[in-house]
Amino acid sequence: MQKVDVFRVPMSGPDDLTSFDKMIDEGTIVAEDIIAVMGKTEGNGCVNDFTRSLTTLVFANGLARRLGKSEKGVKESVAFVMSGGTEGVMSPHATVFTKKDVDAEPAKTKSLAAASGFTREFKPEEIGTTTMVDEVAKRVRELMEEAGIEKAEDVHFVQIKCPLLTSDRIQDATSRGEKVVVNDTYKSMGYSRGASALGVGVALGEINPDDVSKDTILSDWSLYSSVASTSAGIELMNTEIIVMGNAYESASDLVIGHSVMKDAIDIQAILDAMRNAGMDIDGLPSEEQHKRIVNIFAKAEASTDGHVQGRRNTMLTDSDINHTRHARAVVNAVAAAVVQDPMLYISGGSEHQGPDGGGPVAVILKKD
Amino acid sequence: MQKVDVFRVPMSGPDDLTSFDKMIDEGTIVAEDIIAVMGKTEGNGCVNDFTRSLTTLVFANGLARRLGKSEKGVKESVAFVMSGGTEGVMSPHATVFTKKDVDAEPAKTKSLAAASGFTREFKPEEIGTTTMVDEVAKRVRELMEEAGIEKAEDVHFVQIKCPLLTSDRIQDATSRGEKVVVNDTYKSMGYSRGASALGVGVALGEINPDDVSKDTILSDWSLYSSVASTSAGIELMNTEIIVMGNAYESASDLVIGHSVMKDAIDIQAILDAMRNAGMDIDGLPSEEQHKRIVNIFAKAEASTDGHVQGRRNTMLTDSDINHTRHARAVVNAVAAAVVQDPMLYISGGSEHQGPDGGGPVAVILKKD
Amino acid sequence: MQKVDVFRVPMSGPDDLTSFDKMIDEGTIVAEDIIAVMGKTEGNGCVNDFTRSLTTLVFANGLARRLGKSEKGVKESVAFVMSGGTEGVMSPHATVFTKKDVDAEPAKTKSLAAASGFTREFKPEEIGTTTMVDEVAKRVRELMEEAGIEKAEDVHFVQIKCPLLTSDRIQDATSRGEKVVVNDTYKSMGYSRGASALGVGVALGEINPDDVSKDTILSDWSLYSSVASTSAGIELMNTEIIVMGNAYESASDLVIGHSVMKDAIDIQAILDAMRNAGMDIDGLPSEEQHKRIVNIFAKAEASTDGHVQGRRNTMLTDSDINHTRHARAVVNAVAAAVVQDPMLYISGGSEHQGPDGGGPVAVILKKD
Amino acid sequence: MQKVDVFRVPMSGPDDLTSFDKMIDEGTIVAEDIIAVMGKTEGNGCVNDFTRSLTTLVFANGLARRLGKSEKGVKESVAFVMSGGTEGVMSPHATVFTKKDVDAEPAKTKSLAAASGFTREFKPEEIGTTTMVDEVAKRVRELMEEAGIEKAEDVHFVQIKCPLLTSDRIQDATSRGEKVVVNDTYKSMGYSRGASALGVGVALGEINPDDVSKDTILSDWSLYSSVASTSAGIELMNTEIIVMGNAYESASDLVIGHSVMKDAIDIQAILDAMRNAGMDIDGLPSEEQHKRIVNIFAKAEASTDGHVQGRRNTMLTDSDINHTRHARAVVNAVAAAVVQDPMLYISGGSEHQGPDGGGPVAVILKKD
Repeated sequence: MQKVDVFRVPMSGPDDLTSFDKMIDEGTIVAEDIIAVMGKTEGNGCVNDFTRSLTTLVFANGLARRLGKSEKGVKESVAFVMSGGTEGVMSPHATVFTKKDVDAEPAKTKSLAAASGFTREFKPEEIGTTTMVDEVAKRVRELMEEAGIEKAEDVHFVQIKCPLLTSDRIQDATSRGEKVVVNDTYKSMGYSRGASALGVGVALGEINPDDVSKDTILSDWSLYSSVASTSAGIELMNTEIIVMGNAYESASDLVIGHSVMKDAIDIQAILDAMRNAGMDIDGLPSEEQHKRIVNIFAKAEASTDGHVQGRRNTMLTDSDINHTRHARAVVNAVAAAVVQDPMLYISGGSEHQGPDGGGPVAVILKKD
Repeated sequence: MQKVDVFRVPMSGPDDLTSFDKMIDEGTIVAEDIIAVMGKTEGNGCVNDFTRSLTTLVFANGLARRLGKSEKGVKESVAFVMSGGTEGVMSPHATVFTKKDVDAEPAKTKSLAAASGFTREFKPEEIGTTTMVDEVAKRVRELMEEAGIEKAEDVHFVQIKCPLLTSDRIQDATSRGEKVVVNDTYKSMGYSRGASALGVGVALGEINPDDVSKDTILSDWSLYSSVASTSAGIELMNTEIIVMGNAYESASDLVIGHSVMKDAIDIQAILDAMRNAGMDIDGLPSEEQHKRIVNIFAKAEASTDGHVQGRRNTMLTDSDINHTRHARAVVNAVAAAVVQDPMLYISGGSEHQGPDGGGPVAVILKKD
Repeated sequence: MQKVDVFRVPMSGPDDLTSFDKMIDEGTIVAEDIIAVMGKTEGNGCVNDFTRSLTTLVFANGLARRLGKSEKGVKESVAFVMSGGTEGVMSPHATVFTKKDVDAEPAKTKSLAAASGFTREFKPEEIGTTTMVDEVAKRVRELMEEAGIEKAEDVHFVQIKCPLLTSDRIQDATSRGEKVVVNDTYKSMGYSRGASALGVGVALGEINPDDVSKDTILSDWSLYSSVASTSAGIELMNTEIIVMGNAYESASDLVIGHSVMKDAIDIQAILDAMRNAGMDIDGLPSEEQHKRIVNIFAKAEASTDGHVQGRRNTMLTDSDINHTRHARAVVNAVAAAVVQDPMLYISGGSEHQGPDGGGPVAVILKKD
Repeated sequence: MQKVDVFRVPMSGPDDLTSFDKMIDEGTIVAEDIIAVMGKTEGNGCVNDFTRSLTTLVFANGLARRLGKSEKGVKESVAFVMSGGTEGVMSPHATVFTKKDVDAEPAKTKSLAAASGFTREFKPEEIGTTTMVDEVAKRVRELMEEAGIEKAEDVHFVQIKCPLLTSDRIQDATSRGEKVVVNDTYKSMGYSRGASALGVGVALGEINPDDVSKDTILSDWSLYSSVASTSAGIELMNTEIIVMGNAYESASDLVIGHSVMKDAIDIQAILDAMRNAGMDIDGLPSEEQHKRIVNIFAKAEASTDGHVQGRRNTMLTDSDINHTRHARAVVNAVAAAVVQDPMLYISGGSEHQGPDGGGPVAVILKKD
């Protein structure tokens, strides 16, 4: 039976493995069991954020040395998802997922289950299209099954890293007479994130596949997944997928729940996600309950109308600070206030991931 | 008997008086009664933030036209305090204070009382010194009395605008053989804010005047006021002071309370400030209770050790975004989540205003 | 006969009129003769740059007081064009244009001539369209005639301030069943600047009007004017136009010339513009020749391929600093190095104003 | 006899070795001969710029693989100096220095000579002190001799990477009862750069060692070296030094010259540096002469009075963009305009490296 563990590892810089190395040396984390690393790194989280590459490189190098593998070998068995931007009080860290088989009695209650994997590589002209939606949907369903998660409603967070278009990739498609979804490389990130999120929604029955077309991708914002969290990166042409949910087929001591924030200050949604994971909260969680939190995962973005609760904000008109940076600072602050801990995973850019201006929020708890 | 009213006025830009003009035209605000305007403007809140000047200019011009006064005349009777920086979801707005005499029965419970005034002009060499501390302390005590506030513990917020040093002012002092507190004009803002805050602390008995000296100003952070909020501006050589508290000698329908945030995510302090003002809160305030909030006033800053709740943040090492901008986004987000309204007055830079990394938070409520 | 004078006025802040007031008080500038003020203000030059409004406001207020006019009256007779962004060593300042009739002999050589005026107000649905191109072209031709400039080749700089779309304006058009050129308000600035520049090109015969259509505006970059400089602002619905050139019908002691920079470091184009105005330069101008410079006006922008002279730069991938800010710093530095004076008018965003990555550069000189 | 070669290697990102690898694979660069790599990386060049670490890491890893050495072994034989910040049109790249022994006739003219090495490790309490000055001076003299450079006036550029203080290092000194030069870790960078530059000045006889004391370091700006270029990094406790000059004992096809820019737009100093290296320039260099440029190395900084050529700039009052970023954009633009190539090494922060607001500029040329 699977046993999934999740470790939050503080980092004093994007190339700092001190805590990670210590946890391995002490036997807390078993290097061989690692299936995924999700990092919050301290760059700007936008185009020229190289802290994501640096952190991926040092983790992959470090694991390669420990496991006697090549860097490439490590990357084939471990999903690395780095999200840049630790605005406000957000604390840079990595979340390490391990998974192993254990002998155990069938459980009476569901516990955390997870599986990670990859789709096939996409051609440049497939990025951000319905083909991507279909491939992601197919792979999410397979990973659900692999994780032993029986029902769609037991899936609480699906983290995806997806490719983007570059000038070279556009050129490659064009030279073969193919057309890409958009010529602006920055915008291609949004298309790729959006199509990947729609794939999750289709896989979980949140979205009717008939509603997904060239005309609705990045256009019809009523179509969204409540558990998808996607981010685009330059270093891959396939998508990396981590499916998290609860299952009877799990000996984990953890459990996951989620909810959907309707805007950036939706504190009730954060509380609902905790309740959804089984925590009994009256008002705000107690100090005892704070200790049960393993991590919170949420998406943040500025609403397209520039308002929250009917009040104008300046996130979208600020030419000095990108709006995603403002949004991450806010969602992290609200969640940090609830759990009195700012070391949380809040990521920006949430096309088709929750409603306009809002986004999914998931919580992993230690079971009672 | 005094009646103090407080109006929150949305602004669609730093030169937008549309809502303000409408409230005057409709009779909601009486121009003649205005004693103070506190604005949150959408610049960077740092050195080169000219939105503060622009908003002051359009308000002063607008009132001059309505009152048949000169711009200078308006500025002598109305205290204008503009605080730049509306990071995250903070919504740009002005808070307008009016005060008038009304016939009324002696009240059974205390209500909002306020008075605004000015100290004498300071010489450059006095800025940031114990002389400034003494003058501010004296004037705060006078304004307390003028506002009919009987005890120091009934004072809940003292907003001060204070001068800073410029090259010309330093030159002036030097030419007379005098020495200024610091030659760096940016740092002089901190000294002026700090000395003004200590003046409030001395006036209210929070700080023993014997502890205040050249050596403790901007150095001994254990000395602080729990109700001072000070900001420095280039356009004055005296200090403008707005004292707010509760008094029996008030016919206002409002009441004020405060608490002290120990760090940027201290959500309990915000709830305590609301309780301190008389609101009975179980968990988080209800929707009905949200409607009683007139505004929240708080100071935000990064703690000097770069940590919140033991977790490292990157506010002080971020060379792209000033730490005060991060801090304001966080404190506003937490308070906005509590009251489900992001149009709040959160201001940065809190030397001797609350503990390191924290700051005062005050709430004005409509009475039950 | 017209006599046009041009004064460069240093500003110590966006609301500083000290030098301007002094020049009027000393009789150097005659307030009644002012036809235009072009300012370089120290904001970010992007969406949330309010230094432009502040400078316009203080100049208009100041002139209203001196001329006994209303602010509105001043704005009807003086064209105010404020360009934000003084990156690198660029020095904030205003360029004041005056014009008066003098008795004078017919000149033997051409001298600086200028005229400023306004088009009719545009409907929202006309902004950025061929209608705008046509109206601007018509008005530029009229102003040429008014300035006594005989031939298109004698026009050396046409500065235009043009409107942009806001949510309200789009709503207004939509409610009348009309369609605007683009729904993104930020992008509407580019359309308005581009259409205005094309209007100049059509007026001066640089562009065949048949080539201008819905499909070529902001799309066919081979269409451009070599003397247009346009910037968009929220405060108007018409366009303000200042035409500058040389004419026999002028008693001015100044002369203007121009050239086109093919990229941001095209130092030869700057020298060519000076030669075009009649300066005899061998290598770099001499100290004596520096004294003849009244001001340099140039447009700056990042080339869309992210390269200059075949070398990659990071202007377009920098998510911390807008590319227009980088570009202004560069063009100003190069021009400042040539004339050993960084107080120049370099403005960003040059759609259809010179080739991709380059832009017009004009120089006003004192005649020998 | 030594033969020194210098290669400019374009990089498409801070982790891109494509061009470098190609030059090695084609035999242009011999990996074994590399003595130093100086990189311009595309971060902000300030505290939180991690592109410097990333580039050092990928170069060291890449060389370790090729040379069959450990990463540590590579770092002991190759000096890596990464300077962040490619503002304006500056093009990210690395400059690779190789050195080998060749059989050659004694040369008739001097050619490029170079040597790189390290001082001993410093204790925290020695950083930024006269001890550092002395140690650097001693090592520079040794490296001069090692490079066969006979006279101080034949030294044209000395690049140094020096350590900085961290909280841990300060704590270490304090625990031993020692006092560090400054408790602010950011400011310690300036002290370390300044003391290192003074060490160069002392070694080359530019500065009288008796003038250097605790009181003049970072205080008496009249003391400076005209050839020192120093930058501080967290990853070392000694200093890495690269001395470049001209010597008869060199079979190189290159030659170096230098001059001192008195401000950021001192174009004549750039031309003087080229003349100093033996180029005969009339006005501006010709296209043929451009081809002889191997690279330009210069330091950039804002003058402390906020003025260039008597004109105010906003570099020091800009709270959105650090002044070093403005300064680099300007100096690069001016130099790039001269040589029509923006791929140059311009670095910020020049304490005791040239006069206030200016800095050294060196040029490496191919010999005629």
